[in-house]
Amino acid sequence: MFELARRRALEALATGSGIDEDIMEILDEINRREEYYTTSSCSGRIVLISLPEAGAKKKAKFVAKWHRPVSFEELQNSLKIWADNMHRGEELWLLAQSPIIHVAAKDLSSAKQILKVAVAAGFKYSSIKSVSADRTVVEILSTERMDVPLGIDGEIFCSERFLRFVLERANFVLQRGKRKLEKLLSALRKLR
Amino acid sequence: MFELARRRALEALATGSGIDEDIMEILDEINRREEYYTTSSCSGRIVLISLPEAGAKKKAKFVAKWHRPVSFEELQNSLKIWADNMHRGEELWLLAQSPIIHVAAKDLSSAKQILKVAVAAGFKYSSIKSVSADRTVVEILSTERMDVPLGIDGEIFCSERFLRFVLERANFVLQRGKRKLEKLLSALRKLR
Repeated sequence: MFELARRRALEALATGSGIDEDIMEILDEINRREEYYTTSSCSGRIVLISLPEAGAKKKAKFVAKWHRPVSFEELQNSLKIWADNMHRGEELWLLAQSPIIHVAAKDLSSAKQILKVAVAAGFKYSSIKSVSADRTVVEILSTERMDVPLGIDGEIFCSERFLRFVLERANFVLQRGKRKLEKLLSALRKLR
Repeated sequence: MFELARRRALEALATGSGIDEDIMEILDEINRREEYYTTSSCSGRIVLISLPEAGAKKKAKFVAKWHRPVSFEELQNSLKIWADNMHRGEELWLLAQSPIIHVAAKDLSSAKQILKVAVAAGFKYSSIKSVSADRTVVEILSTERMDVPLGIDGEIFCSERFLRFVLERANFVLQRGKRKLEKLLSALRKLR
């Protein structure tokens, strides 16, 4: 069961597109081991989401999504798009998210091994998400994160100076996440 | 080993103080079962932290901490305290945090049971944090969270209107977390 699922996951990864360059080497390093395969990943991102009602993140619509640092002009353009297309009552939030990798491990002891490596490399929020007879799923996750509400009803409440400050922090969070990926890669290589 | 650690944890809980009322019933409901004991918990909170340098949350100093909704006047008072006492380069962040409970389970199957209940009750970020011969630790955690930078060098960048908006959202996040605790309590009771 595990071997078959692993083969299919690796095939999908080889033929698929849309994987961030930043994270590909890490996925390869994990997938070269028979006891693991990766099921999903993101190298970290800055996103603008529009929520139809407060806190209803499930119903969020993406206004913009970047896997790299964002310039103030890019942010402003996206805010304008939102303001022009917004619906009454919608809230705009800026999120900065840490890298995330889901790894299926063939047993609990393999799961514990990669969990230990991830935590040691600075991914302190890593954990085991599920355990079944077929596989144990590990989530590799860091603590960096921002969740900032920016406005409602098409109106941005904060000043340009504050927006610049928030964006600078978001870019910092993103780059800190990418640096941790480098640390994770060298830790994984040492396991060989 | 597990039984002894459990007895000590329950004694510490019975004699300890500082446990939020909101969460005590849930801890009792978990701790009445021989296969579990709780090791730490928070019913959710709104905090102001001052960071000596960008993103260095490990070195954060608490400026204020509330386990209940916060009024705008309370927030303003705390911002003033920070501005009066700040050190050069320090950043002020407002965080709203979901409830969190750490549960030690005597084995993997007990851990999986409580993890399933927690996820079904809306605590979607719940996971297994560690697995050892002695115990398996489950973290019960929800997705609600805010991490908003407010200012630097003793200066708050955002307008009063924006601050009110952020605080309203933070209070909403807090109360949403508390409602989920009620859902978790009734789900745990059904397990009996």
